[in-house]
Amino acid sequence: MQYEDRVDALVAPKGALEMLSQNEIARLSEESGSLYDLFHRCALAILNCGSDSDDPEAVMEEFKDFDIQVIQQERGVKLQLKNAPSSAFVDGKMISSVREMLFSVLRDIIFTEHEYNLASGLENASSEKLTNVVFELLRNAEVFRRIQSPDMIVCWGGHSIARHEYDYTKKVGHELGLRELNICTGCGPGAMKGPMKGAAIAHAKQRIKDGVYLGLTEPGIIAAESPNPIVNQLVIMPDIEKRLEAFVRAGHGIVVFPGGAGTAEEILYILGILLHPKNADVPFPLVFTGPTESADYFEQIHAFIGDVLGAEAQSKYRIIIEDEVEVARVMKQGMEDVLQYRKAHQDAFYYNWKLHIPEEFQHPFEPTHEKVRELNLHFGQETHLLAADLRRAFSSIVAGNVKAQGVAYIKEFGPFEIHGDKDLLAKLDSLLQAFVHQQRMKLPGSAYVPCYRVVTE
Amino acid sequence: MQYEDRVDALVAPKGALEMLSQNEIARLSEESGSLYDLFHRCALAILNCGSDSDDPEAVMEEFKDFDIQVIQQERGVKLQLKNAPSSAFVDGKMISSVREMLFSVLRDIIFTEHEYNLASGLENASSEKLTNVVFELLRNAEVFRRIQSPDMIVCWGGHSIARHEYDYTKKVGHELGLRELNICTGCGPGAMKGPMKGAAIAHAKQRIKDGVYLGLTEPGIIAAESPNPIVNQLVIMPDIEKRLEAFVRAGHGIVVFPGGAGTAEEILYILGILLHPKNADVPFPLVFTGPTESADYFEQIHAFIGDVLGAEAQSKYRIIIEDEVEVARVMKQGMEDVLQYRKAHQDAFYYNWKLHIPEEFQHPFEPTHEKVRELNLHFGQETHLLAADLRRAFSSIVAGNVKAQGVAYIKEFGPFEIHGDKDLLAKLDSLLQAFVHQQRMKLPGSAYVPCYRVVTE
Amino acid sequence: MQYEDRVDALVAPKGALEMLSQNEIARLSEESGSLYDLFHRCALAILNCGSDSDDPEAVMEEFKDFDIQVIQQERGVKLQLKNAPSSAFVDGKMISSVREMLFSVLRDIIFTEHEYNLASGLENASSEKLTNVVFELLRNAEVFRRIQSPDMIVCWGGHSIARHEYDYTKKVGHELGLRELNICTGCGPGAMKGPMKGAAIAHAKQRIKDGVYLGLTEPGIIAAESPNPIVNQLVIMPDIEKRLEAFVRAGHGIVVFPGGAGTAEEILYILGILLHPKNADVPFPLVFTGPTESADYFEQIHAFIGDVLGAEAQSKYRIIIEDEVEVARVMKQGMEDVLQYRKAHQDAFYYNWKLHIPEEFQHPFEPTHEKVRELNLHFGQETHLLAADLRRAFSSIVAGNVKAQGVAYIKEFGPFEIHGDKDLLAKLDSLLQAFVHQQRMKLPGSAYVPCYRVVTE
Amino acid sequence: MQYEDRVDALVAPKGALEMLSQNEIARLSEESGSLYDLFHRCALAILNCGSDSDDPEAVMEEFKDFDIQVIQQERGVKLQLKNAPSSAFVDGKMISSVREMLFSVLRDIIFTEHEYNLASGLENASSEKLTNVVFELLRNAEVFRRIQSPDMIVCWGGHSIARHEYDYTKKVGHELGLRELNICTGCGPGAMKGPMKGAAIAHAKQRIKDGVYLGLTEPGIIAAESPNPIVNQLVIMPDIEKRLEAFVRAGHGIVVFPGGAGTAEEILYILGILLHPKNADVPFPLVFTGPTESADYFEQIHAFIGDVLGAEAQSKYRIIIEDEVEVARVMKQGMEDVLQYRKAHQDAFYYNWKLHIPEEFQHPFEPTHEKVRELNLHFGQETHLLAADLRRAFSSIVAGNVKAQGVAYIKEFGPFEIHGDKDLLAKLDSLLQAFVHQQRMKLPGSAYVPCYRVVTE
Repeated sequence: MQYEDRVDALVAPKGALEMLSQNEIARLSEESGSLYDLFHRCALAILNCGSDSDDPEAVMEEFKDFDIQVIQQERGVKLQLKNAPSSAFVDGKMISSVREMLFSVLRDIIFTEHEYNLASGLENASSEKLTNVVFELLRNAEVFRRIQSPDMIVCWGGHSIARHEYDYTKKVGHELGLRELNICTGCGPGAMKGPMKGAAIAHAKQRIKDGVYLGLTEPGIIAAESPNPIVNQLVIMPDIEKRLEAFVRAGHGIVVFPGGAGTAEEILYILGILLHPKNADVPFPLVFTGPTESADYFEQIHAFIGDVLGAEAQSKYRIIIEDEVEVARVMKQGMEDVLQYRKAHQDAFYYNWKLHIPEEFQHPFEPTHEKVRELNLHFGQETHLLAADLRRAFSSIVAGNVKAQGVAYIKEFGPFEIHGDKDLLAKLDSLLQAFVHQQRMKLPGSAYVPCYRVVTE
Repeated sequence: MQYEDRVDALVAPKGALEMLSQNEIARLSEESGSLYDLFHRCALAILNCGSDSDDPEAVMEEFKDFDIQVIQQERGVKLQLKNAPSSAFVDGKMISSVREMLFSVLRDIIFTEHEYNLASGLENASSEKLTNVVFELLRNAEVFRRIQSPDMIVCWGGHSIARHEYDYTKKVGHELGLRELNICTGCGPGAMKGPMKGAAIAHAKQRIKDGVYLGLTEPGIIAAESPNPIVNQLVIMPDIEKRLEAFVRAGHGIVVFPGGAGTAEEILYILGILLHPKNADVPFPLVFTGPTESADYFEQIHAFIGDVLGAEAQSKYRIIIEDEVEVARVMKQGMEDVLQYRKAHQDAFYYNWKLHIPEEFQHPFEPTHEKVRELNLHFGQETHLLAADLRRAFSSIVAGNVKAQGVAYIKEFGPFEIHGDKDLLAKLDSLLQAFVHQQRMKLPGSAYVPCYRVVTE
Repeated sequence: MQYEDRVDALVAPKGALEMLSQNEIARLSEESGSLYDLFHRCALAILNCGSDSDDPEAVMEEFKDFDIQVIQQERGVKLQLKNAPSSAFVDGKMISSVREMLFSVLRDIIFTEHEYNLASGLENASSEKLTNVVFELLRNAEVFRRIQSPDMIVCWGGHSIARHEYDYTKKVGHELGLRELNICTGCGPGAMKGPMKGAAIAHAKQRIKDGVYLGLTEPGIIAAESPNPIVNQLVIMPDIEKRLEAFVRAGHGIVVFPGGAGTAEEILYILGILLHPKNADVPFPLVFTGPTESADYFEQIHAFIGDVLGAEAQSKYRIIIEDEVEVARVMKQGMEDVLQYRKAHQDAFYYNWKLHIPEEFQHPFEPTHEKVRELNLHFGQETHLLAADLRRAFSSIVAGNVKAQGVAYIKEFGPFEIHGDKDLLAKLDSLLQAFVHQQRMKLPGSAYVPCYRVVTE
Repeated sequence: MQYEDRVDALVAPKGALEMLSQNEIARLSEESGSLYDLFHRCALAILNCGSDSDDPEAVMEEFKDFDIQVIQQERGVKLQLKNAPSSAFVDGKMISSVREMLFSVLRDIIFTEHEYNLASGLENASSEKLTNVVFELLRNAEVFRRIQSPDMIVCWGGHSIARHEYDYTKKVGHELGLRELNICTGCGPGAMKGPMKGAAIAHAKQRIKDGVYLGLTEPGIIAAESPNPIVNQLVIMPDIEKRLEAFVRAGHGIVVFPGGAGTAEEILYILGILLHPKNADVPFPLVFTGPTESADYFEQIHAFIGDVLGAEAQSKYRIIIEDEVEVARVMKQGMEDVLQYRKAHQDAFYYNWKLHIPEEFQHPFEPTHEKVRELNLHFGQETHLLAADLRRAFSSIVAGNVKAQGVAYIKEFGPFEIHGDKDLLAKLDSLLQAFVHQQRMKLPGSAYVPCYRVVTE
């Protein structure tokens, strides 16, 4: 037997969305249509799950003759693949989890387009409308379950982390899994894979057959962070802001592992929300944790938060170093608090309707040079608003580092310019320097060329 | 213990649609909203499943203090009922099938409203668009299954039939069920219940735990024909034409039992379609059957079809008298033909895309006095067009007999006037007289007052 | 297609016992072996499920060229049938329930032989040992379930009952099923089938997919009372006494419908046990019920019980005429009493260990002319002992009526002679006369020739 | 919260054997009974799953106040534990897999005792009888599944292996799992855990929810090699010979990783069988594999086999170094060969009836000083007989190393004396020296004191 590095295959789905209407198939099949492009790109990201690259351009180039078509057959639709990456196959047969994810992509793209003309339709939507949209997207993806108690732990952290950090994320996942908790991450390697792997083994020990490993991604990031194959629920949210809202509304608590700019963005997002006065009494278990070697890292983050957002922000989380059992116990106990609160307020277990998310965190931020320049990084405003703009600053850096559009902008116009208070920017810059120094900005191997420039006023 | 004839209850669903967005709940909860009215009316029809009345007005009057509200709770939404008919309960606890159907109603009403502004939105829709809408409604109701072979037998026939006719429908259902076929009917008593009951026992004998008893109804008819509790998949289609299209696209073959005007409408619908030249080679097993005592009835129908639509129309079905085993064998063999055809044409097993339905059969026909008067009941046109207008004539009579709106029209303006060829109308009139004579127009007990008048030219 | 009245088939099982050791296959395959005979006989009874005969000899004669062999194959054993009755098949394919029962027979015969050399091994066994044997036989048949509450209603009554009685048993079964109760009977037609059929429909309405229809039979009776195809758990107990013990230990309450000698035997069995002082406080819901037309029948029984066993015996049951809802409510409430008692005494839900069964009711009684003559039918002994011998008297009559061995004895030696108190026998005789008169001794069509003679002293 | 290192708990089972008869409970509950001792010992081994010790005496000593009792309750039996090792619990709640295994122990001990008076009953049993006993034990443990194709890969190898060897066993398990193969090992750490862990992750990727991780152990070894918690089917075979027979009859192919005396015993067992002329054409995929660093080890084994058993023995297996994909492909292909053979010979997929196992490999060998001295380790006999006695020699060494009885013998009487051909013993001794040198005889940390002495003649 000879196994090639490109595979042609006709694959059938397992679940429900195999039934497409003729209209839907038509929309996906016209190669000129915008749906086809998006589908083609996301599908390739899924199939390329075994790859170590986080450079989407390179991936597109490598597999430029990859093709995917939807075919109608008597038992439902199938996907016809040509020149697909062989890493998605075992001896020529597609790995089931990859197959499942391919159809998740199909489902989300069709539903999103069908329901919301997202490109334009939600531009002026109210905060409430946006929250309902996130709800409907997750519901359509069958993310919601009937549960006896909150159990979904979101794990954030870098895709490019050191071996000992990765091993630690597995241990934390294992302890969470032993306590019958489930895992939600952003899909991808590193801190997004380790907790799921640990939990999968723990769930096997606990004979839990319906453990959930939920991956939330978006079209811009999926190419750089292919879902790892443990993910058994995958949702492609239409943009980064809806993905973040999905994390905090579908998750019941968050564990943050070491990471880079993306992780910082996520930290600022959740802190900005929790700092809003309306959320003062909403319980939201939040732990920062890492192995002993990462203690310094969290020291730096903690200091930065104290400096720019203040002590109240620091009170919203707990830092635990090298103690996976304690992390798991804190989260398990936190689930109890969330349970009591939701019951008392008749809020759904599966969706945190009560959490107030200010509009600043909901509307898509497109990181262009102009938009980045306009960010308001000054003290003397409400902390949740400062957090919102700091979030956008980090978001821009992520885009400039790994997203196709962002990378293209940087190539054309040079680094983003981040303006603001001298003091504040100094703190920011030194944090970013530390990230670079610790190789948290890119997968190792490549020297990091910054995509931003700090401009004090 | 004392059991009242009115019950208050808080009921939880089992399935997936328990998760409603806040927007959706709001739309259902405002008592002034149009969704609330529709929901309230359909819910009452479901709960009134034990009743023998087919007079929707009387039901509404009897339960005028019935109330239903959607309540958000931590594990999903619940329904709060007040003064519900006790026939839906056993010792104060709601029967599971009724509970399931209540939530089916909720699902269909929300989805339909959400997707299509049906009141106005589909008025000018193309035939293709309407077919896709029917598909999406059925898909959302999870009617589609992955099957190895076509197996869904639609059973049509009257809700008001004699005991020996009813027993025969059970026997046919039993033989179909023994052959692992499933049953789809229009919901309600009589010929719509018997085949399901027979099949349920047969499925138990064959250890089939996932037997399907699919009920297709619509808001206008549901109050007069409450779903019988064997129905385990219930779909509320938005109007009679989409319901008919659902029958012929989701079903794989049809068995017609004796019935009244509604059954005649259905016969003309399927014949009109099968007579269209584009469907000449589409296999569609169609059997008319009844016990020995009903032989005359089919004789009359057969003669009427021959007289007005011709021999080709007669060639589309087979009449089998008092031989349930033969009926079941013919349908089983017919499934094989359908299978081969779908495979050869790569058409879906779960939806008959290839069947051409002329627009005349798709657009809603609202039976007003004016519209009825305009019907073109003349020879000398394409037979499928004549069938279309004959279908509408019978549809008007059903409306005038049992639908709330139709009954109101008749009350106000007197009987519908049906115009047309003298010869043709003579045949029609004598068929209708026979129905009246055989007590097929209304549930027994009430004398039938005709809602139509034949006006020859 | 032509369907014959004899079918050859190779059938595969679904469950676990398809895996036989080579030793086991050998024991079943030798046609001279005693296991083969028993298996052959029971298998034929199962396959003959559609028959209306209760004459085992006639059945054996009719299908004398029927053959069954166990075949080893790569996925387990299969059964090779030759000249099997076609009533077990639909269009040449075996009905699943029949297939399941065939393998139940196999399972019970092998296990029983393997564990207990029943012919001789249990002759001197203690009461406790026998109770453990019954437990192990039921456990091996996977009868025991983990349940939240007692729910198994035993229904006793005749296999030969009038149509209105049969319809009433269906109604009672329906009401029991609506209350989520399960049904256990002795397998066969009449009162053993009706309640299961009613419950099956009710379970469908309540969406109960794991409803239990437990049939307990024994090799001597199975040929005369083929299991009806609703039965989804079938156990062949080795003799009538173990079958009776299985009823009262695995069941949680008993409903008695009209019947003949067999039903009388069962009534005396349960009353004899409940009359034992050790069982004074054991709750055991027991209802005698029938339609209005059967009121006299229960009047007679009630009077007989009062006359021979006294008022205490009469206090152990309740008679309810033509009120299926009340029967079901009484049983449902009774389940609550049983629940509380078992919890308080840490007794298993699935097996009534606490019920004391005197040895007189456990050891097999073989109805020979000699044994029947020795029965002690006199007043002046403990009532439970008198009940024991009355039970044996009725058992003898059942044997003489329908069991192969008993029928043969009667043929050879004439009717059994029943000796005893004049008074007592007079009551007995008039009860039996009433049974004959009401056609409760045999299936209709044949005139009843008594197999007994009452001899007063 | 404070967590102790001893836990008291009342645990309920999930499966079927929760239903024990009163006799069975009695047998287990009398602390003086032999069943209690065996149960107590095995249960402790299960509970001590987190331990790193392979010294059963030490474990017994450490937990000498551990107690376990069977309690009858209304929903079945429960186990009452006192002073159980806390490693079996998470925050005071027993890990599900441990709970499952506890009840497996109960099941096997009761069944074995019930069916076979093993201490004495099988002493003179025929080879055929013993094979049937092994079959029945596995069947009772529900090991047999209905499968489409052979898929059970037995993995043998040391419990005390180096980190890189362990990582390699995980990789092999992962590749096997990706190919939908299942894993069977002897339970315990090292090479018995790695393949299961790898396969568990791979099964998650392939969405296989019913992956099987079968552990076969025996009372003498379980204390030293606690089942790892991935094991989801555990069977306690009564002795080492029946355990070995279970491996080769229930497994479809074998992968051998590096190990010590126990692994050598297993290699000689399978080679001895495959060398028997009757098995010449039975396909049995057999691969020896390890990482690059272990190449020498297999070199030594290969040479030893060639020297003492000859080239034919060498032809029975394939050595693959550091190529997990190749190992998996060879086994996958081997399954196809087994499939064809079983089909052609109508042999069961789940039990290899056709494999001939000479009696020498079936009867228990109790390693006393006398028996060891009598081993016939000379050339000039049939190779399968020489293999049989070599197997016994290694078995003795395992016993002397880690089994309670063996260790006690050595303590009392000094090392076993192994007699035989000078040449042969020289080869044997040098192989054993290599094992000692490579630390394969005991878990690291303790210096190895040999339990044997080679005595050339």
